[in-house]
Amino acid sequence: MELLPHIQGPDDLKRLSREDLPRLAAEIRKVIIETVAKTGGHLAPSLGVVELTLALHYVFEAPKDRIIWDVGHQAYAHKLVTGRYDRFHTLRQHGGISGFPKRSESPYDVLDTGHSSTSISAALGMTTALDLSGQEGRVVAVIGDGSMTAGLAFEALNNAGHLRKDLVVILNDNEMSISPNVGALSSFLSRKLTGRLATRFKREMESFLKKSGVGEQIWSVLKRSEDSLKSLLTPGMLFEALQFEYVGPLPGHHLDTLIDTLDNVRNLEGPVLVHVLTKKGKGYPPAEKEPDRFHGIGPFDPATGEPRRPERPAPPTYTQIFSQTLLRLAMDDPRIVAITAAMPAGTGLSAFADALPHRFFDVGIAEQHAVTFAAGLAMEGLRPVVAVYSTFLQRAYDQVVHDVCLTGQPVVFALDRGGLVGDDGPTHHGAFDLSFLRAVPNLVIMAPKDENELQHMLYTALNHPGPVAVRYPRGAGVGVSLDWRLEALPVGRGEVLREGNDVAIVAIGSGVAPALEAAEALAAEGIEATVVNARFAKPIDADLVTEAARRTGRVVTVEENALAGGFGTAVLECLADRGLTGVRVRRLGLPDRFVEQGAQATLRRELGIDAEGIRAAAEALAAEGRRTGAAARLRPVRSG
Amino acid sequence: MELLPHIQGPDDLKRLSREDLPRLAAEIRKVIIETVAKTGGHLAPSLGVVELTLALHYVFEAPKDRIIWDVGHQAYAHKLVTGRYDRFHTLRQHGGISGFPKRSESPYDVLDTGHSSTSISAALGMTTALDLSGQEGRVVAVIGDGSMTAGLAFEALNNAGHLRKDLVVILNDNEMSISPNVGALSSFLSRKLTGRLATRFKREMESFLKKSGVGEQIWSVLKRSEDSLKSLLTPGMLFEALQFEYVGPLPGHHLDTLIDTLDNVRNLEGPVLVHVLTKKGKGYPPAEKEPDRFHGIGPFDPATGEPRRPERPAPPTYTQIFSQTLLRLAMDDPRIVAITAAMPAGTGLSAFADALPHRFFDVGIAEQHAVTFAAGLAMEGLRPVVAVYSTFLQRAYDQVVHDVCLTGQPVVFALDRGGLVGDDGPTHHGAFDLSFLRAVPNLVIMAPKDENELQHMLYTALNHPGPVAVRYPRGAGVGVSLDWRLEALPVGRGEVLREGNDVAIVAIGSGVAPALEAAEALAAEGIEATVVNARFAKPIDADLVTEAARRTGRVVTVEENALAGGFGTAVLECLADRGLTGVRVRRLGLPDRFVEQGAQATLRRELGIDAEGIRAAAEALAAEGRRTGAAARLRPVRSG
Repeated sequence: MELLPHIQGPDDLKRLSREDLPRLAAEIRKVIIETVAKTGGHLAPSLGVVELTLALHYVFEAPKDRIIWDVGHQAYAHKLVTGRYDRFHTLRQHGGISGFPKRSESPYDVLDTGHSSTSISAALGMTTALDLSGQEGRVVAVIGDGSMTAGLAFEALNNAGHLRKDLVVILNDNEMSISPNVGALSSFLSRKLTGRLATRFKREMESFLKKSGVGEQIWSVLKRSEDSLKSLLTPGMLFEALQFEYVGPLPGHHLDTLIDTLDNVRNLEGPVLVHVLTKKGKGYPPAEKEPDRFHGIGPFDPATGEPRRPERPAPPTYTQIFSQTLLRLAMDDPRIVAITAAMPAGTGLSAFADALPHRFFDVGIAEQHAVTFAAGLAMEGLRPVVAVYSTFLQRAYDQVVHDVCLTGQPVVFALDRGGLVGDDGPTHHGAFDLSFLRAVPNLVIMAPKDENELQHMLYTALNHPGPVAVRYPRGAGVGVSLDWRLEALPVGRGEVLREGNDVAIVAIGSGVAPALEAAEALAAEGIEATVVNARFAKPIDADLVTEAARRTGRVVTVEENALAGGFGTAVLECLADRGLTGVRVRRLGLPDRFVEQGAQATLRRELGIDAEGIRAAAEALAAEGRRTGAAARLRPVRSG
Repeated sequence: MELLPHIQGPDDLKRLSREDLPRLAAEIRKVIIETVAKTGGHLAPSLGVVELTLALHYVFEAPKDRIIWDVGHQAYAHKLVTGRYDRFHTLRQHGGISGFPKRSESPYDVLDTGHSSTSISAALGMTTALDLSGQEGRVVAVIGDGSMTAGLAFEALNNAGHLRKDLVVILNDNEMSISPNVGALSSFLSRKLTGRLATRFKREMESFLKKSGVGEQIWSVLKRSEDSLKSLLTPGMLFEALQFEYVGPLPGHHLDTLIDTLDNVRNLEGPVLVHVLTKKGKGYPPAEKEPDRFHGIGPFDPATGEPRRPERPAPPTYTQIFSQTLLRLAMDDPRIVAITAAMPAGTGLSAFADALPHRFFDVGIAEQHAVTFAAGLAMEGLRPVVAVYSTFLQRAYDQVVHDVCLTGQPVVFALDRGGLVGDDGPTHHGAFDLSFLRAVPNLVIMAPKDENELQHMLYTALNHPGPVAVRYPRGAGVGVSLDWRLEALPVGRGEVLREGNDVAIVAIGSGVAPALEAAEALAAEGIEATVVNARFAKPIDADLVTEAARRTGRVVTVEENALAGGFGTAVLECLADRGLTGVRVRRLGLPDRFVEQGAQATLRRELGIDAEGIRAAAEALAAEGRRTGAAARLRPVRSG
């Protein structure tokens, strides 16, 4: 008889004997592997914490006790034992359960996560609030060693050690976040201490022993045991320096040890850090062997771990084109260097790292540092490219403003996953970059209409004497052929792709291809549309936009960004600043709410930003225009 | 003969004998005190690093060697010895030298600073670039112990220890950043080790000695020297764990020690941390006694340190009204808690901290953590108020989006210094908040027209079931009387302050008072203006705005925020979404460039957002409207 189908919550789990838990763990792994093989998802992280999840729910009393999963990409086992077994097959599907913890999904999900390193801050807030309001409940944050490298985690540890509230932090140390961790802290955690540290320690010890009157004799004994000396400097020292009680390291797949230790920890007061060693992908050999590839993965064959071939070959992704183009340009220009915040594979920088390792920098999960580090590189004459997902650049907004753009440093931001990302949902959509970046002086912002234009834009960006953001969507390109010869596009100039007098569709980035499709459908109805590929959100091509608006009197704007402050808004600003009134503008884009998960195509259809949505909006506008006979008026140009 | 007037750069400094340096230090202090007594500025930080500055320029070879001042509020001595003695009296004045390092001002200023904790990241970028391109030059970052608590600094240390480039980090440890430091790291630096850490160390030592065969006897000797044991765990351990070579702590006002040590450090390879102990305000007794008050200070009497009385009493500042109102509300509602990132005095939370210490949280220079911590507090039923300067909230943009607004947590952001701050210049103007916040779903954004409305807005915010930002300017209020009874304003509703059919002036926040003044001047010319106090940037009062626009056909918007994506843009979006065409809109606000330092009134006049600027814009628009006879057309309402 299977155990898992009968686990509706932690109470059912607690009714099992300890002897049954390994069987349950095996069942959980089987369901996770089979499901993710179909849906895609974060496989290796979730497989790594099955025992830890069971031990936590066996010992603690969720939801009264709050268990927080940092980043949240390791929470599948947690979902399976907290009442979501029946719905687990809907993982990451439109209308299904989320790939991340979600408060609105379950009382056991106490923090919506997706971005890393928030858990200790939120946990400290929760435990402080419980304390102040006299409520019961322990708070536990589970955080990976990769997430621990982010500044936010450090800020939280520093504050937690000071406040001394009851708080359990579980350091899930798998020596790998998404790709192998880098950074001094990581080496320290791996107990690969430097010779220098040991030397210093010995020196101080020697001097201390001499002062104590114990003398040379004992020191010589100590010196012979250098390994033991080094072992005195454990990771625990670091955390105890921050006033945490340190427990561990524990074997992370040994249920009895985990349960016994957590049972003790539960009764400790003050901040406690439990160091647990786990293996990513545990229990599924292909994932154990290639944890990086199985971190986040598309559908695959569970028997072999091989990816499912798509039914027909897709065009290369924007990420791939970025990857190839950057490497090609870097081969010709020694000033080009590349920076990632712990996502070399996701951002397409792996090839660069292999080919030009001394010009490649993985700074860890540290977007803030990535950007300011890039500013420093640029100030000394290099041409740094920071490759980062749009949603994660939110982490470094101040650094973009204050360290890069204030003095106009020529840093290129390659913003992958601009717009809707699909299955990962609201924490990962790149919904806001056009809005928050547009306000920043000195910054040029562009978005390519297809993968070929991405090549030219990257070339343009690297030849521009100031900061540039190039924003492109997740997934496959449009399927156009790729020019070999790269050209610098004139900054601030768009292009007219089609002319027509009934309505103008002004689109940017991934909005251009469906805009063209919409225009063809409109033509079949007898409505002639101008289609503009804006290319630049900043500076916008004011002449082109004004001319298209003046000629048609009706403008539909298309973008995959929040409507508030985004590209369509830039069009409104442009028309107002040019004094052009009487133009009817309908803006299509992301609404003023967080958009849920779902396939990109599904979401685009629902939000009316696919070809049909654009067609319908343009048709309605054209009809309205004909009814009222609006005519645009051009006033004298005024500066904004 | 005075020495300082003859120091045109570090070469002149190097020509002095060491014996002359203390005299020069005294002259520098005198000039700094006398100047800041007139101009205001960051006095205590600069006085604390006079010797350190001289030692650095005596030993290193700027500008070939790069000396970076973190935050930059301690760089006055640096400016005085790098060719800016003659202009030093223009400190922080419009057109004068900046209160912070500025690349455009001097080749000796290698990084524009103002926000904290950027120095190590930028320095690492610079040294990496010098290394890659085969250029000479050492890079030195001077960072305070307060700035060291920010996540960005930690991210940079972690990366620097990994890259092992040549880099000198000077930890300027004055045990006080802006107010006394908090946090576990700070305690550690102060060598106030916990009993627990010492206990653990003893335990491990005991077990080690037993294993080594040395036995109980020696252990008993060691145990008797508990203080010595503790001293083994120095701050050096922490930095050496991060793979920095640690040097120090050094007496920071002893020139010979500083020079000799830096001379050695200059030749070390790899990352080095030099720990220097300094005293804030050194050499000026009033500042030594009250380093917090003298951190950043207005004009004062140098003889006594007493502030210069303004010629006529000014109305209370927005900060003061926020301070009083929050405390008053918190007295009645135990759920209200207050959070600051190391700025209790600046944000007006000192009174709250004194009255309700257990509900007050200074988290250190850690805006990211402040916001996510607040989210955790809110999730457990409290009503956290994060008081932060607008410009520093840029540090926590992702946390506002991902941790607060995604799940609609009722956190109140009290955004002080929204708009132009004056003398501190471009790094400190709160120029972008309306733009970057407007894109975030679930967030309500308001800005009061005067200090009385601030009271009601704070009350409104704390009674709203979701996240709210209340944004108010630096400096004195308008001088209105204060209502005793607080009322919840209807969310998303503005108010009409004056009616007129010729032009509508739609203003928000600090733009409202000059808009009213402008309307009076217009009335004297026979132009009748409607004046709208918008109150909410999000949700904007679409009915009110549309009605005013429809009636007049001519709208002037006024805000102290970037025009790109700001409040005026929200008005454009509103009119477009309502299908209202034919309205001429002129937006007044901050231009698309970084605005330099200067008195607030001066800058407002230059940027045309004072009463006269508004009047002129409205007059021009009204005249234009009369010429062309524009009439607004209202189309059927459509959803955006």
